Amino acid sequence: MATVDRVQRLAELAVTVGANVQPDQIVALGAELGHEPIVRAIAAAAYRRGARFVDVSYFDPHVKRERILNARPETLEFVPPWYGERIIQLGELRASRILTRGPGTPGLLDDLDPALTGRDILPRIKESGKVVGDRTTNWTIIPYPTPGWAQQVHPELAPEDALERLWEEIVHVCRLDEADPVAAWTERIEDTRAAAARLNERHFDSLHFEGPGTDLTIGLLPTSIWANALFETVDGTAHLANVPTEEVFTTPDPERADGFVTSTKPLVFPGGSSTKGLRVRFEEGRAVAIEADEGAANLRAQTAKDEGGVRLGEVALVDREGRIGPLGTVFHDTLLDENAASHIALGQGFEFSVAEEDHGRVNKSGIHVDFMIGSPEVDVTGATHDGERVPVLRGGAWQI
Amino acid sequence: MATVDRVQRLAELAVTVGANVQPDQIVALGAELGHEPIVRAIAAAAYRRGARFVDVSYFDPHVKRERILNARPETLEFVPPWYGERIIQLGELRASRILTRGPGTPGLLDDLDPALTGRDILPRIKESGKVVGDRTTNWTIIPYPTPGWAQQVHPELAPEDALERLWEEIVHVCRLDEADPVAAWTERIEDTRAAAARLNERHFDSLHFEGPGTDLTIGLLPTSIWANALFETVDGTAHLANVPTEEVFTTPDPERADGFVTSTKPLVFPGGSSTKGLRVRFEEGRAVAIEADEGAANLRAQTAKDEGGVRLGEVALVDREGRIGPLGTVFHDTLLDENAASHIALGQGFEFSVAEEDHGRVNKSGIHVDFMIGSPEVDVTGATHDGERVPVLRGGAWQI
Repeated sequence: MATVDRVQRLAELAVTVGANVQPDQIVALGAELGHEPIVRAIAAAAYRRGARFVDVSYFDPHVKRERILNARPETLEFVPPWYGERIIQLGELRASRILTRGPGTPGLLDDLDPALTGRDILPRIKESGKVVGDRTTNWTIIPYPTPGWAQQVHPELAPEDALERLWEEIVHVCRLDEADPVAAWTERIEDTRAAAARLNERHFDSLHFEGPGTDLTIGLLPTSIWANALFETVDGTAHLANVPTEEVFTTPDPERADGFVTSTKPLVFPGGSSTKGLRVRFEEGRAVAIEADEGAANLRAQTAKDEGGVRLGEVALVDREGRIGPLGTVFHDTLLDENAASHIALGQGFEFSVAEEDHGRVNKSGIHVDFMIGSPEVDVTGATHDGERVPVLRGGAWQI
Repeated sequence: MATVDRVQRLAELAVTVGANVQPDQIVALGAELGHEPIVRAIAAAAYRRGARFVDVSYFDPHVKRERILNARPETLEFVPPWYGERIIQLGELRASRILTRGPGTPGLLDDLDPALTGRDILPRIKESGKVVGDRTTNWTIIPYPTPGWAQQVHPELAPEDALERLWEEIVHVCRLDEADPVAAWTERIEDTRAAAARLNERHFDSLHFEGPGTDLTIGLLPTSIWANALFETVDGTAHLANVPTEEVFTTPDPERADGFVTSTKPLVFPGGSSTKGLRVRFEEGRAVAIEADEGAANLRAQTAKDEGGVRLGEVALVDREGRIGPLGTVFHDTLLDENAASHIALGQGFEFSVAEEDHGRVNKSGIHVDFMIGSPEVDVTGATHDGERVPVLRGGAWQI
């Protein structure tokens, strides 16, 4: 497939299966510089579907770098009020939101002081957590291959070969190599929906992860609800929050996580800094020790932002039927890597993953940092409120 | 001078002589895609001067093209509310604003229906007129050479030579080839300030432009004040609104313009569409006929936006001492070309160019379109309230 056709198909997927853009909607489209071809194709596709306005925000990580290098440190957490107000208004106006992902210059911030990079969370805007929780926007996140990202993922290949390989992988995991990608997605979404339904039937009190370097028990809230990424807005618009997605997830009890866990994939932050070989110890829900082979300080700087930064907001299970895990590729990007493996997230939880009576117990934070803890070697076992232990995942296959 | 040094010097000029960025200010920086090097250099320079935050907005004219091609025509005037609210807040917060100019893809919209392109005025935001009038932000506009722009300006040269030539011209007209550009600007600004003071002493009732294809009388308001582009905010921060600038200007009486005028330079709109060989007839302040060799419809679509779109908001005089006119280069961009020649603008006037008693008489419009009407062949003569005719410019030289 020529790249221009791939861009076209990816853009169509973003506005149909992904965000499900509705006639007369405003579409907020956030992208990094270097994503121009997919941005323009998404804008065209959204307008063809009748969008009222496509509001494009290009993010320049090099400007972020200049800020961290030159700005007064005490200003690094400042964000102008209109950043958050725009997000809040997107919710009020029932807009659609599309984010493209794919770093142009991986590692761009790696040589900077993590204590400084951690203070500037842009392009993440803290109000976006509220709008996600309110379910007022139909949104999606899709990957876009850049030359820099391709070099990071496939350093052993020549630049043009690396980009071609990454494109082929993105096309495959986005099921764009199917004759009817929409039908392929409909089928896979039904699979994960059914898995979530079985988990909800069991109504586990906690999950136990056991494997190399991992022995972690995560408590669930009384009303924690498992779901896949097919979300529905308050107005009933279905949208696939991530493309691709292979996970089922819920919000755990932020006060019950005990044991230790070793990440099974690198964790890469939006600005390009990363944490590799991560090991976290939890006590009574708090991450009390964060160690890593590389870049532990990058994650510590994030989690130090607020009280909820060291507690869990998400636990997610990924089976071996997805298309990402079998590739064996480390994409250095959460959007893809999290769908290769079961994962947890420090920071903001999802109110919509629990019943109203438990809203107050969902973790609150300005951050939401996913990291991968699953692999075929990691067993997942559920414990019921009666103390019964039920195998959930063995070798990546559902046992329930 | 290596391009990296030119970018650096231009960026320093933007935050010093231009916007005069103050410690702890927010700096709103608007640029077209393709301006990344100057954007990053300006951000770094602004942070070094103590800026609190540099809020970069990249504009993508290709997205605008996709909108005009694919959106429902009735939506083309829509702008999300947060665009204007951000501008208003920039004023309330006494922010600094910097715009870089230099089209990446000149003529990108020229093949589209002018009736449609005229409806979408972005990246211009109508609230910016209010913030300029309120004098609440210290702002500047500076040029940045792009390969596409260089090809448009110097089509006879090979691409790399065209870019080099344009860079040399920009360096020259921005006085970056002086040992001390700041001192050079201080001197030139004093020259135009003195010319404006002499015009104010004469207190003309009207100006008469006479030359090839031009015989136009423009009435001034009783309190029209001549000034150069060294503005001062309500809080007393001086800033040079355009870099480079060579003009003195005021706001005329929107009800008194009579005769005909022929433009002496092409008029290029932000999106890339243009009007060449423009001829306009005025009666009682209104542009009653707009003709052109090319693209008359592009200007007509702009002026049709509102009642004030066909009346004058600005009249400006440029002497022959400036650096742009002598180059003889047509830059296809108002920022530079308007400083080669005397000019007028259809649309929004400047309240700050008149005393409070005349605020109500200043032209109101959502547009402000400059076009060049001066040349060494065009005589400018002032008429006093007593009917005395006083030569003002002959052969481009001040007579007063």
